[in-house]
Amino acid sequence: MNRVSCVALSGGVGGAKLALGLYKAMTDPSELLIVANTGDDFEHLGLRICPDIDTVTYTLSGLSNLELGWGRQDESWSFMETLGTLGGETWFNLGDRDLALHVERTRRLQSGNSLSDVTADIAQRFAIKAAVAPMADHDVRTIVETPEGPLAFQHYFVRDRCEPTVTGFRFDGAASAAPSPALAAALSGAGPNFVVICPSNPFISIDPILAVPGIRKMLVKSAAPVIAVSPIVGGQAIKGPTAKMMAELGMDATAQGVARHYAGLIDGFVLDTVDAAAADAIMANGPDVLVTNTVMKSLEDRVSLAREIIAFSEQLKQR
Amino acid sequence: MNRVSCVALSGGVGGAKLALGLYKAMTDPSELLIVANTGDDFEHLGLRICPDIDTVTYTLSGLSNLELGWGRQDESWSFMETLGTLGGETWFNLGDRDLALHVERTRRLQSGNSLSDVTADIAQRFAIKAAVAPMADHDVRTIVETPEGPLAFQHYFVRDRCEPTVTGFRFDGAASAAPSPALAAALSGAGPNFVVICPSNPFISIDPILAVPGIRKMLVKSAAPVIAVSPIVGGQAIKGPTAKMMAELGMDATAQGVARHYAGLIDGFVLDTVDAAAADAIMANGPDVLVTNTVMKSLEDRVSLAREIIAFSEQLKQR
Repeated sequence: MNRVSCVALSGGVGGAKLALGLYKAMTDPSELLIVANTGDDFEHLGLRICPDIDTVTYTLSGLSNLELGWGRQDESWSFMETLGTLGGETWFNLGDRDLALHVERTRRLQSGNSLSDVTADIAQRFAIKAAVAPMADHDVRTIVETPEGPLAFQHYFVRDRCEPTVTGFRFDGAASAAPSPALAAALSGAGPNFVVICPSNPFISIDPILAVPGIRKMLVKSAAPVIAVSPIVGGQAIKGPTAKMMAELGMDATAQGVARHYAGLIDGFVLDTVDAAAADAIMANGPDVLVTNTVMKSLEDRVSLAREIIAFSEQLKQR
Repeated sequence: MNRVSCVALSGGVGGAKLALGLYKAMTDPSELLIVANTGDDFEHLGLRICPDIDTVTYTLSGLSNLELGWGRQDESWSFMETLGTLGGETWFNLGDRDLALHVERTRRLQSGNSLSDVTADIAQRFAIKAAVAPMADHDVRTIVETPEGPLAFQHYFVRDRCEPTVTGFRFDGAASAAPSPALAAALSGAGPNFVVICPSNPFISIDPILAVPGIRKMLVKSAAPVIAVSPIVGGQAIKGPTAKMMAELGMDATAQGVARHYAGLIDGFVLDTVDAAAADAIMANGPDVLVTNTVMKSLEDRVSLAREIIAFSEQLKQR
């Protein structure tokens, strides 16, 4: 196990973009540990599916499907097409190549391997030099509370296309979970140089990680600055339902609202230039603020944002 | 449920050829019940795989891969290719479309459906007018005894390419199995007009069916003539290890050896013209014999053999 100088907490697509930037920007990418949310994992068609782990893995290995924004490149769809003709459940699309990962992971989990071991081995087979780990090896399942009752995360997110109104969240199983060994090791002892909370959805990508007993406390106790990157830019989510959720939960759908959500945890907050006006108000609440371009369209954008975050973390350490 | 006028007992490829012939030759194909061996079913990659049921289903629906001799036509192989890169088990090849059937069947079995129900529904979705049923809904697993110890059937058959010497067979689970509801119904009451034992391997395709308590007795008691078609022609198996097995078991690898194996069960035996000389010796042992061309290369061959068997069954009934 390498020394970990950076721990990045990530959900899916948005988080993985910055994780890739850090991977490319770091002098030694083997010192990067990406911890993926597993609250949106689910069992489907008898398979264990880990959307955020896989998005991170595909993104870092260069295998992600840039056209679709999810899944693998060079994908074929024979399985799903045939499943439809057999009357199977087709609301969650799975490519033929992607499926191999789910089948192999499920087989290994059933034969007693931990999710951490499977995730690390797959990352290695994909020639990823950084470490990729789940937040926990225990099953944690995000439940979305709605006026019509609770919804399993993927039913809310994919099947129902985030249409139901959100009244809250529950992370089933979190109370009896523990941080994954890689995360626990990285946060103990001298700790990393810095921790990045990627621009993922705070409620459904980051909060499940923080709900695992011990993680929040270790982050707060650590000497490493914790830096969150706002997933809200100009009152809009770059991707996904973050802004819609904030409104439904009665919060300001702003970067400032996100900073408030992480109050007491973060030492630094990265704000987009379009939201520069909010910097003072956020700083009054505690964290230092870095104002920069946070919208990552190109690979250069990802690397450039990562470099600024690395520099920001060094400033924060010197205070 | 239709009245069943013909019950065909079948293994994989060879048996399915004649099953297709019967399907095309019968005036009302909905009166055909094909009972597939499930002794070579197995659990692989967490999936329930039923090779003989699927070969029958693909063959009758016109979806079988004629080039490969197994699996589906219009197949793609992305899943298996990717599984290999992940370090998964690749000795049993599964196409992307074929896989959908295994995943959907496994899901339905796990949610409490019987194998009979799943098999019937799949056949219906593939627009097959005949009934397709497993021999039993219980798990029966063919074990191949070898000097080096017992082998699970697919390990012997696919992984080890039938190379180990066979000393005997065991059908684990057979003792506590019961005939599938469709088979039990077809053989009770007035019974069918005739029963065909397709030209499948007697030891690994037909014996597992006969090992299910009640099936042999019902066949013997039934007024319907039971007609076996020799899978051995001129001392050779049309396909697969039948002749090799017979030699290893110390039996004559001849059509006559097959007829002897079915002694006490069959009323008619269908012998290839090249083996015509054995007809008298076989008849001396009990069954009537039909000598004809049994090698089915074209669809016409299949239908023509089926027509002769239907006519033969009518002769046998009049005795």
